[in-house]
Amino acid sequence: MEVNGPKVSRYLEKFIAGPDKKIRLKKYDTSWVQHESLKNRSEEEANEFLKDILAKDHRELAEVQEILAASCRRSILIVIQGMDTAGKDGTIKHVMSGLNPQGCEVHSFKVPGTEDHAHDFLWRYEKVLPERGMIGIFNRSYYEDVLVVHVHPERMEDLPTEIGPGAKGFWEGRYKDINSFEKHLVRNGTVVLKFFLHISKDEQKQRLIERLSQKEKYWKFSFSDIAERKYWDQYMAVYEEMLEATSTEFAPWFIVPADHKWAARTLVAEAITSAIAGLNLSYPEFSENQIRYFAEAKKQLEEE
Amino acid sequence: MEVNGPKVSRYLEKFIAGPDKKIRLKKYDTSWVQHESLKNRSEEEANEFLKDILAKDHRELAEVQEILAASCRRSILIVIQGMDTAGKDGTIKHVMSGLNPQGCEVHSFKVPGTEDHAHDFLWRYEKVLPERGMIGIFNRSYYEDVLVVHVHPERMEDLPTEIGPGAKGFWEGRYKDINSFEKHLVRNGTVVLKFFLHISKDEQKQRLIERLSQKEKYWKFSFSDIAERKYWDQYMAVYEEMLEATSTEFAPWFIVPADHKWAARTLVAEAITSAIAGLNLSYPEFSENQIRYFAEAKKQLEEE
Repeated sequence: MEVNGPKVSRYLEKFIAGPDKKIRLKKYDTSWVQHESLKNRSEEEANEFLKDILAKDHRELAEVQEILAASCRRSILIVIQGMDTAGKDGTIKHVMSGLNPQGCEVHSFKVPGTEDHAHDFLWRYEKVLPERGMIGIFNRSYYEDVLVVHVHPERMEDLPTEIGPGAKGFWEGRYKDINSFEKHLVRNGTVVLKFFLHISKDEQKQRLIERLSQKEKYWKFSFSDIAERKYWDQYMAVYEEMLEATSTEFAPWFIVPADHKWAARTLVAEAITSAIAGLNLSYPEFSENQIRYFAEAKKQLEEE
Repeated sequence: MEVNGPKVSRYLEKFIAGPDKKIRLKKYDTSWVQHESLKNRSEEEANEFLKDILAKDHRELAEVQEILAASCRRSILIVIQGMDTAGKDGTIKHVMSGLNPQGCEVHSFKVPGTEDHAHDFLWRYEKVLPERGMIGIFNRSYYEDVLVVHVHPERMEDLPTEIGPGAKGFWEGRYKDINSFEKHLVRNGTVVLKFFLHISKDEQKQRLIERLSQKEKYWKFSFSDIAERKYWDQYMAVYEEMLEATSTEFAPWFIVPADHKWAARTLVAEAITSAIAGLNLSYPEFSENQIRYFAEAKKQLEEE
């Protein structure tokens, strides 16, 4: 079976990382917006404009989702990664809230527990993969297992030494495992779309200050967010390594400029819609015989 | 710990079945609409009116959901049952599509497999209960295990005889198990809301004919829908028995008049919103000490 990557519009292809290219995140403009002219408008005006675009995106996304569900041939796995405050939760809320919740499942992965640690690192994610006809969204994912633990290898202390981060080729092995896993998914009918929400360190600072300036946003703040800022450069380095190693033809990464929340949201919505539309799915078709049966059934009901 | 049922507005209480009352489904008007005046309007006008109400309901539901998620103290289990074409899928699509998908999970239960049959009848449902902060929706549920198999006991042939439907007190036992299970959930912080979408046999006929009249709706049609119509009276009898046995103070059933789709949808939306609002949840509160830490963290960021 062929192992094809998602087909998206030309316009969206620009945001795909690599494959087989050196990734230097600093070279990616985090403050991009869809229309140059928006940069001259007030933040509020620009947001209103982009919200209108997103409303249109919602309708298109809902349409392709219905065909995805009706045809029941393929599943969509959406992976969302990004630094703290990059807008993962907000993207899911605003992009996906137009979807039929029956065809969409979101999994937010928290700190792994003892049972997770006792298995291979992909185990807890495999259990909740989307079935055919469904869109599954991973808010954080197995990529945390090559990101946060790469910056903080001490968090993998309970791994046996010989298969732990001290072992030769450990990270390379994990990348290979991820690529094989995703290739397996794609071969079996899943479209894998991965979004890295890319914000600048300064934008993160502004967002954290905002959370700390409004009482109603306190609960979104975590002290670890500040502690982790110290590791910003290390994070960027592991992100670059990860993007280079795992942005493949069959499961590419989109590097999404995310300093402007609404710009990022519309981009993600359009990439998902484009990829599903690119599958050229259709409503189930019926043979002449089946259609004759339908007509008979209808007659039977009408005469009841 | 107390085992309290959901608190809903007076207006909605009217739709609660029993508890401890004989249920005669024929006495429930399936064609009810919120406003008497709507009955005199065209179907289209009435729908437009109710769609506007639902848009308002969406906003209210989204608001209480946010507090539910932020407070992370309680979970909501919504069970939706009803005859074929009663509007289960449509209700989920239209009522829940305003929700943040990150806080909402829908489980549609299909014909059980060998592994399910090898376990007790609640097993496959327990595995996917909503965690605290979440709204879980069961499209069909463990109630199928006292409904469809009650009409068709031959489908339980693989149960060992001594614990199968031939055993004395089998159905009473299942009702007791369900009540204990739900009491356990409620005691541990889950609000259990159960909706029986109640349509007339004639309305089902019209809906089946509609599915058979439009090519794009063929895929929603199943021949078993017609076959099952022959058992309509038996289904009503087992529904009545089930409602009597399992509409409890702590987990009541709402009998939702569902001949008018939009009338049913707004009612379900309002019941869910009312029940969550009735929990009087609030955003997490912080001690003076914590607030001082927040201020320090903010200062630290600003000086960075």
